[in-house]
Amino acid sequence: MAKALRLGLIGGGDDSFIGAIHRMAARLDGEYEICAGVLSSNPEKSKRSGEKIGLPSDRVYGSYQEMFAAEAKRADGIQAVSIVTPNHVHYGPAKLALESGIDVIIDKPLCLDLGEARELRELVQKTGLGFALTYTYAGYPAVIEAKDLVASGRLGKLRKVVVQYPQGWLGEKIEDQNQKQASWRTDPKRAGASCCFADIGSHAIQLAENISGQRVNQVLAELQTYVPGRSLDDDATVLLRFDGGMKGVALVSQISSGEGNALKIALYGDKGGLHWSHDNNNQLILQWTDRPREILEIGGDKAYLSEATRRFVRTPSGHPEGYIEAFANIYTSFARHVRARRAGEKQPYEFADVHDGFRGMAVVEAALTSSNEGSVWTKVADK
Amino acid sequence: MAKALRLGLIGGGDDSFIGAIHRMAARLDGEYEICAGVLSSNPEKSKRSGEKIGLPSDRVYGSYQEMFAAEAKRADGIQAVSIVTPNHVHYGPAKLALESGIDVIIDKPLCLDLGEARELRELVQKTGLGFALTYTYAGYPAVIEAKDLVASGRLGKLRKVVVQYPQGWLGEKIEDQNQKQASWRTDPKRAGASCCFADIGSHAIQLAENISGQRVNQVLAELQTYVPGRSLDDDATVLLRFDGGMKGVALVSQISSGEGNALKIALYGDKGGLHWSHDNNNQLILQWTDRPREILEIGGDKAYLSEATRRFVRTPSGHPEGYIEAFANIYTSFARHVRARRAGEKQPYEFADVHDGFRGMAVVEAALTSSNEGSVWTKVADK
Amino acid sequence: MAKALRLGLIGGGDDSFIGAIHRMAARLDGEYEICAGVLSSNPEKSKRSGEKIGLPSDRVYGSYQEMFAAEAKRADGIQAVSIVTPNHVHYGPAKLALESGIDVIIDKPLCLDLGEARELRELVQKTGLGFALTYTYAGYPAVIEAKDLVASGRLGKLRKVVVQYPQGWLGEKIEDQNQKQASWRTDPKRAGASCCFADIGSHAIQLAENISGQRVNQVLAELQTYVPGRSLDDDATVLLRFDGGMKGVALVSQISSGEGNALKIALYGDKGGLHWSHDNNNQLILQWTDRPREILEIGGDKAYLSEATRRFVRTPSGHPEGYIEAFANIYTSFARHVRARRAGEKQPYEFADVHDGFRGMAVVEAALTSSNEGSVWTKVADK
Amino acid sequence: MAKALRLGLIGGGDDSFIGAIHRMAARLDGEYEICAGVLSSNPEKSKRSGEKIGLPSDRVYGSYQEMFAAEAKRADGIQAVSIVTPNHVHYGPAKLALESGIDVIIDKPLCLDLGEARELRELVQKTGLGFALTYTYAGYPAVIEAKDLVASGRLGKLRKVVVQYPQGWLGEKIEDQNQKQASWRTDPKRAGASCCFADIGSHAIQLAENISGQRVNQVLAELQTYVPGRSLDDDATVLLRFDGGMKGVALVSQISSGEGNALKIALYGDKGGLHWSHDNNNQLILQWTDRPREILEIGGDKAYLSEATRRFVRTPSGHPEGYIEAFANIYTSFARHVRARRAGEKQPYEFADVHDGFRGMAVVEAALTSSNEGSVWTKVADK
Repeated sequence: MAKALRLGLIGGGDDSFIGAIHRMAARLDGEYEICAGVLSSNPEKSKRSGEKIGLPSDRVYGSYQEMFAAEAKRADGIQAVSIVTPNHVHYGPAKLALESGIDVIIDKPLCLDLGEARELRELVQKTGLGFALTYTYAGYPAVIEAKDLVASGRLGKLRKVVVQYPQGWLGEKIEDQNQKQASWRTDPKRAGASCCFADIGSHAIQLAENISGQRVNQVLAELQTYVPGRSLDDDATVLLRFDGGMKGVALVSQISSGEGNALKIALYGDKGGLHWSHDNNNQLILQWTDRPREILEIGGDKAYLSEATRRFVRTPSGHPEGYIEAFANIYTSFARHVRARRAGEKQPYEFADVHDGFRGMAVVEAALTSSNEGSVWTKVADK
Repeated sequence: MAKALRLGLIGGGDDSFIGAIHRMAARLDGEYEICAGVLSSNPEKSKRSGEKIGLPSDRVYGSYQEMFAAEAKRADGIQAVSIVTPNHVHYGPAKLALESGIDVIIDKPLCLDLGEARELRELVQKTGLGFALTYTYAGYPAVIEAKDLVASGRLGKLRKVVVQYPQGWLGEKIEDQNQKQASWRTDPKRAGASCCFADIGSHAIQLAENISGQRVNQVLAELQTYVPGRSLDDDATVLLRFDGGMKGVALVSQISSGEGNALKIALYGDKGGLHWSHDNNNQLILQWTDRPREILEIGGDKAYLSEATRRFVRTPSGHPEGYIEAFANIYTSFARHVRARRAGEKQPYEFADVHDGFRGMAVVEAALTSSNEGSVWTKVADK
Repeated sequence: MAKALRLGLIGGGDDSFIGAIHRMAARLDGEYEICAGVLSSNPEKSKRSGEKIGLPSDRVYGSYQEMFAAEAKRADGIQAVSIVTPNHVHYGPAKLALESGIDVIIDKPLCLDLGEARELRELVQKTGLGFALTYTYAGYPAVIEAKDLVASGRLGKLRKVVVQYPQGWLGEKIEDQNQKQASWRTDPKRAGASCCFADIGSHAIQLAENISGQRVNQVLAELQTYVPGRSLDDDATVLLRFDGGMKGVALVSQISSGEGNALKIALYGDKGGLHWSHDNNNQLILQWTDRPREILEIGGDKAYLSEATRRFVRTPSGHPEGYIEAFANIYTSFARHVRARRAGEKQPYEFADVHDGFRGMAVVEAALTSSNEGSVWTKVADK
Repeated sequence: MAKALRLGLIGGGDDSFIGAIHRMAARLDGEYEICAGVLSSNPEKSKRSGEKIGLPSDRVYGSYQEMFAAEAKRADGIQAVSIVTPNHVHYGPAKLALESGIDVIIDKPLCLDLGEARELRELVQKTGLGFALTYTYAGYPAVIEAKDLVASGRLGKLRKVVVQYPQGWLGEKIEDQNQKQASWRTDPKRAGASCCFADIGSHAIQLAENISGQRVNQVLAELQTYVPGRSLDDDATVLLRFDGGMKGVALVSQISSGEGNALKIALYGDKGGLHWSHDNNNQLILQWTDRPREILEIGGDKAYLSEATRRFVRTPSGHPEGYIEAFANIYTSFARHVRARRAGEKQPYEFADVHDGFRGMAVVEAALTSSNEGSVWTKVADK
């Protein structure tokens, strides 16, 4: 293994769910050394969290500006940074990282609005640095296989996609009960203009675009708020048109009582269809008009899987990998990509990049516009 | 058992799929005696089909008018009629049956347009005769249980319903290959102004209304035709608003390659949710915000099921009943209902009646209007 | 349709579960006319039950001897008889029926011991009459397909079978609570020397033999009684050797708390394997060493199914058929078979015959011997 | 987080599947620092493998003796060792580690025979050092929950367990094709006297004992070799008796064509039953005699899970964890346990210890004896 990439952390302290996931993802394949961090906007909390996760105390910082400055002076300073803050604190550290020559892994969504998104996109293109958004589902081997399968043409001309992401955890007004995850996501100042559709709808859209290889260019949306007193949407139904001629629907919800995190997609071409569900992440179901349904199982031993897929599998079939491994695939793909760039080589990658990040923002913005204007067809910004 | 009801058949000859199902449904519980019929609009084919299914040749007729006239003269003439013809031959025989004092079982949809529907509704009300539409899914015990469960309030206030009915069999233009089922369904003259949404969307809507106890009063629809050269819709996405405050979505399709007949519904209240899928018709899944998901299994031995449900179950759990039994439940419920009326008694029933039939027509009409006008919110006629 | 076969009933009155199933099976396809019966060994109860199911009162008899005698005198007398009595009342009516020239459908097991079984087998051979045992699972289309598939050699040389039949309903001593089904099955006088293995183990063995085309010739059995105070077995584990070289295991139980009726089989050859489960009776899973698992779906529209299978399917895929239809397949196959014989023709059939009935008895007897002698390998009688 | 434990590796080089898993498990939660290793018995291969996984070259050794000696001289020498060699190289390094004061994590089975096992057991007791066997399935949260649930008495008195572990990968003689995993497992010199039952049967038995809290004390076994020319068993059926009165069956196989790694267990008490399957590792199914089946879902957000379970969960429900996480749970539990011991505290643990390791050996030995003597009941050594 080539030398591990030196990683700094921004956000993801103590009581963050996703912060811990990022660290596990970074550790799993041994591709990163976690060296430094600013774990909270509160300096004391940052210290405490930093020590708790085993960082040397002199490399736990009070602000990201401080971290970039200090680390730049060290021979063994951080080479990449992982940004795991609420949405409104994405733009600032991402920009400074790029300006400091640091490769960036950042939680989705990219930032708060299209203006910020355009700036970041430009900066990435100018600097040539690595920039990955952790759209988790792009890291699942079965998703990589599905993409390969669609590209191969085996399903024929794509006609329709149905992507569903039902959750139930915001069915009650738990943001009033000091539930941290709920508090910032339902707060327009920290989350932006959308809760449900921006938070999980964006995953659904990325999944559909990623597998189909087509881009959403028009939406007709109905964003709803079911829970009384909440100001942002907690449910959304969005009709989709894609630039390759495919049509579709996204159903996303955070008030679907009893649902966990069951993202699922069905994609239909004129020769066949496929199903993937997060609840059964190691299977890919193919169905045909004239022969039996097939169940592809993910595993390093399955010669029928594409090479691309098998590069992101750690175990033989029947040894379930899951969410953390998918997350780690993004981290590992990013490390390989950055390392290749430094060696002057090219390396295909399996993660959402800054263009996907921009698109995620644009689709959310279009859906908000559509919904506000009474559910009318609305174009998605492409520049 | 009280004496079997004497039944006449209209339509459903030789090469009809649903005709054979109606006859099995009538026979299964021994509640009917199939006595007479006009099996085809072609008199010779009618004769041939009639003999094939074992009718005495003097009671196989060349037209329904002839049948009603001849049977009225017999002491053992038919008491009820089962109408299993393409949509454009519903109104005529249904009207004449009612005018002849004959109870009517009729395939859905009720007829071709709301004008016909209003007339039939009025006639049923005037005559007081029995009138059942074979919306098959109303006959599944798990659906009856779901309805009971919602009515009990256990799911809390209903918020949202997602009902999906994906099929794949019209993914190719098989109506050009002389496939009889496809030919009439895709022909505006015989099917009316909609193929997919009228054919199976109507089942989806009836299921949602039946379980929730709420009625659709507005729709926003996008009806699509994916297969080139076809004139009616083969796919539909319809947003729904219900009179009880629930919202929802119906996704129905006949071009979803590889799908069979997997009608499924998810219904969410503020205390819990439920799932039912035709592919697993003997289970009802209940899910809660604070305790484990529960799987209700249909079976006469399950004391936790409602009495209403158990009246329509023939076997202990683990002995799967299915489509034909659900169909038979409608027939049997109708027989009990008719018999009760004749005895001057009342009997609750588990089948769609003429009002449901009217509603089915009205929702389809509203969806067509919405779609034609560019997917705008459209009211559903209620009178 | 050729003229319906005139059927008499023995047993299956009022409170019998299986009696009602037999009648539905006889009615479903219109192949039988139920004409006469002796519904109970108690003449009054027989009368009452007979009227309840709609028999004319002069053809409800007080004993089977009486029925055979009276019906023989009528021009429209019964042609076939269906015997649905507890095990100890199988031999008598079956023998008399055969001697009276009546074709016989009989519930399994064939009778009480191998002596009786040999006699009946001889009588069937001598008379040439039709004789079917309602080993229900032989009537499932997926089982017919599995048999065809094994015979085709696609799985390679068969190595191993695992057949499981777990139920939970005898987990408590409900025979003390006047539960009729439990009472006779746990009573050595009425059930014979085995409860669980004879009742459901026999289904498991028949399924394994039927699909594999091989016959059990040795067993090593452990029959258990888990519920205190019960005298017959309520659970059995039986190792199997087959005459074609296959080995296997049968796990059957009636004390597996919470289980319904989930008979399932896995069969492994050196090229592939198959799974069928009663809980998912319309699917057959094929699995291979080198390519994706396949799901065969039962339906008249599936051209990949064998012709033999499709002859026993009434609906397109996605319209679930189940237990009653499987039972009806046996009845209908028997009717076709009997009709063919009368026409001097041959007709392959899909039901267990008297030889299978004999084998069912022989395997149970061998298992009892093995278990009583401390679980030693024991030969199965073949003559 | 307390300081990471310094870990040395023995075995698990380059082409080892399980070696990579051990390292990921050690890294995932940041509880270990992998410092040194002897990756192969071949010194050059050890070097190459060591560098590949990022070890400093001066801490990659040529033999385990060398490693223990060298590391003992360093202030930052290894504190624990992970032994991932074929079975015949378990005893040697384990013994020397214990004698060197090093805590031991070791792949199962413990060693080659009961003599070695007794020695190691004694040494662990004498030294008081930590000693964990990576019986992976003990690390699954759903298994921990199942154990808790059984202990709570909710299932009533345990009656029966059925544990099944079907694999298909040894269905062909791949040991002749230079497949490394197959070569040593089918070779008596390296694997011991059993292939299938020792390799995966031991997992099945450990799972049954772990969840039930009862110990196997008698077995009746049939070990089979299906693939011609193979000298060890590739399939086993074993009847079980437990010291707490429960009975059961283990079905394990490596020639079940098309099976992956689908370990599953069903456990029945007189009040209810449970099902767990590796293919659905994040669910636990509970079933009852009088109320609906329940599905427990594993996730940190599920308050209905036991505290013990939630300590080993990293994500909310719907974010699947799997094989690597279960493995990591064993590593992490071991780290906490060792750290507690060093702090003079006690810490309950979720891994198989040396006693379980001994028992695993004893059951395999008894099964071999039983099978060799013609499948007779055989006692399991308990000392």
